[in-house]
Amino acid sequence: MRNLKLTLAYDGSGFHGWQVQPGRPTIQGALAEVIAGLTGEQVLPQGSGRTDAGVHALAQVATFQTESRIPVENFKVVLNDRLPPTIRVLAVEEMPGGFHARHSAIGKSYRYRIYRADPVPPFLYRLVTHFPYLLNEDVMAEAAKLVEGEHDFTSFAAVDPDRAERMEKTHFHLQQAGVGHHLEADDLPKHAGNVRTIYRSAFERRGDELVYEVSGNGFLHHMVRNLVGTFLLVGKRTLTPQDILRILGERNRSAAGPTAPAEGLYLVSVKYPE
Amino acid sequence: MRNLKLTLAYDGSGFHGWQVQPGRPTIQGALAEVIAGLTGEQVLPQGSGRTDAGVHALAQVATFQTESRIPVENFKVVLNDRLPPTIRVLAVEEMPGGFHARHSAIGKSYRYRIYRADPVPPFLYRLVTHFPYLLNEDVMAEAAKLVEGEHDFTSFAAVDPDRAERMEKTHFHLQQAGVGHHLEADDLPKHAGNVRTIYRSAFERRGDELVYEVSGNGFLHHMVRNLVGTFLLVGKRTLTPQDILRILGERNRSAAGPTAPAEGLYLVSVKYPE
Repeated sequence: MRNLKLTLAYDGSGFHGWQVQPGRPTIQGALAEVIAGLTGEQVLPQGSGRTDAGVHALAQVATFQTESRIPVENFKVVLNDRLPPTIRVLAVEEMPGGFHARHSAIGKSYRYRIYRADPVPPFLYRLVTHFPYLLNEDVMAEAAKLVEGEHDFTSFAAVDPDRAERMEKTHFHLQQAGVGHHLEADDLPKHAGNVRTIYRSAFERRGDELVYEVSGNGFLHHMVRNLVGTFLLVGKRTLTPQDILRILGERNRSAAGPTAPAEGLYLVSVKYPE
Repeated sequence: MRNLKLTLAYDGSGFHGWQVQPGRPTIQGALAEVIAGLTGEQVLPQGSGRTDAGVHALAQVATFQTESRIPVENFKVVLNDRLPPTIRVLAVEEMPGGFHARHSAIGKSYRYRIYRADPVPPFLYRLVTHFPYLLNEDVMAEAAKLVEGEHDFTSFAAVDPDRAERMEKTHFHLQQAGVGHHLEADDLPKHAGNVRTIYRSAFERRGDELVYEVSGNGFLHHMVRNLVGTFLLVGKRTLTPQDILRILGERNRSAAGPTAPAEGLYLVSVKYPE
C-alpha cells in the first residue's frame, strides 16, 4: 500500500468547503471522485484540516492510501487533467506509511486579504474581502502583534454545538456510500484544550490590499476569521489594541468580534517535521 | 441631454463579448439593462470598440446620452450596486456633446498574458492563456518589435464573411426591441483600409507570465490575438522573426498564424485627444 501526499491549490469560491458532503461540490469530494475513476479505489483523502465554504488554499496538504502503481509525476498530470481547473495538484509525493496530512502537521500559515480601495476589480471579487471604509491600520498592526506567543484562544474559536452532530451525519452518509472514512476531528487532540502558539501575526500593506499573515502550531475552527473580525473592530476604533488581551483572557467567544467573511481567507502552507 | 462617459473594467469570462445579443449575457446588454432600470431610458452605451467573448477590460470606455440628472458620482455608485461584480464602473464623467467613445478614440492599448508554468493557479484559469511548452522568448521579442510603425495589417485581420450579416441581424433585433442603435462599425472608416500605426509592441517577463503589450492608433478585428498566435509560432521556431515582415507584405490572413485564445487578452486603455 502506497501512502501519497498531495499538495493542492484551490479557489474555494465554487465549493462548499473541503469536507465531502452528499450532493454538494467539495474539494475532498472532487478528489475522491477523480481518484476513484483513476484507481478504482474508494478513498477519502485526508486533509491537513478542513477549509470552510469559500476559503481558498495555496498549498493544502492531503494524504491517501492506494494500491495503484501509477508513478507520482503521472498521477499529478492525470489528476489535473480530470479535476476542475479551480483545483490544482501542485505535487504528488510518496511518503512513509506513518505520514498523515493532519496528524503529522506541526504548524500552519494563513493569509487574509482585505481590499481597501473601491470598487473591487472584477477579477478579485471572490478572492478578497472588501472593506473600503476608514480603518486605522497602525492600531490593527499593533493588535495583531499581541496574539503572538502562547495563548488560550477560546474567545476566537467557533462555538459549534451542532458540529459533532453534523459530522456524525456525514460519517453515516459516507459509510452508507461504502466510502472508507475515519471521522475527522479538529486538530485539538494534540494540543492542550484551546491553547495554541502563534509564531507570527502581522498586517502588511500591499498596494490596495491590507494583508494579514498568521502562522502558528495549530488553529481552532474560525480562529483566523474571528481574529480578523476583531482586528477590524480595532481598526474602526470600536476596540483598542489592549482589548485583545482582555478578550483572550475572557475565554468566551462572545467577547470577541464577528467572524470575517470566508472569501478573503487563504490556507498558505502546512508545516511538517523535516 | 447629457453625454456621459463610463470607464469600465470587466472579467469577460462570463460574457458573450461586449456587444448586445438577444438572450445572452453581454457587457453592453448588462449596462443597458441597469441604465434602463435607473433612468427609465432605453439607451445602448457605445463602446470604444467591441471586445469578443472571453476578452477582459481594465479600462474600456463607453458613452451614452441621458436626460437623467443623477450626479456622476452617484451614477457610479448605483451602477456598481446593480451591475454584476464582474463588471465595475471605475468612473463616470460628463463630456461635451461631440465626444463619442469610438469616434473620438485616437489610440488603444492591449495586453496579452501567457502563463508559462504548470499548472495554472486556480485563481487565474480564465484570466491567462496557458502555454507551458518550450518557447524561445528572445525571438518572440524580436518579432514583436518588427510590427512597430505603420503597416498594412490585412494578414492579421479576421476574415469575417458572415460578420456584416450577423451585425445586420443584431441591428434588426434591436430595432424590433425599440432600442435606439447605430449600427456599430469597426474603427475602419477613420483609417485608410487596413493600415494602422503601432506605437509599441513588446514582450515582457513578469514572474511566470510572458506578457505582450501593444499600443497603436487602431486595431482590426482579432488583430492582437492573430499577432500573438503568430509570435507563438516564432517562439516555437516554426517561423523566424523576419517572417513577420513577409507575412505583413502578403496582405493575406492565411499567411499568418492561428488566433490565440480570448482569455489572455485585455483591453488596457483607450486614448482620446487631451
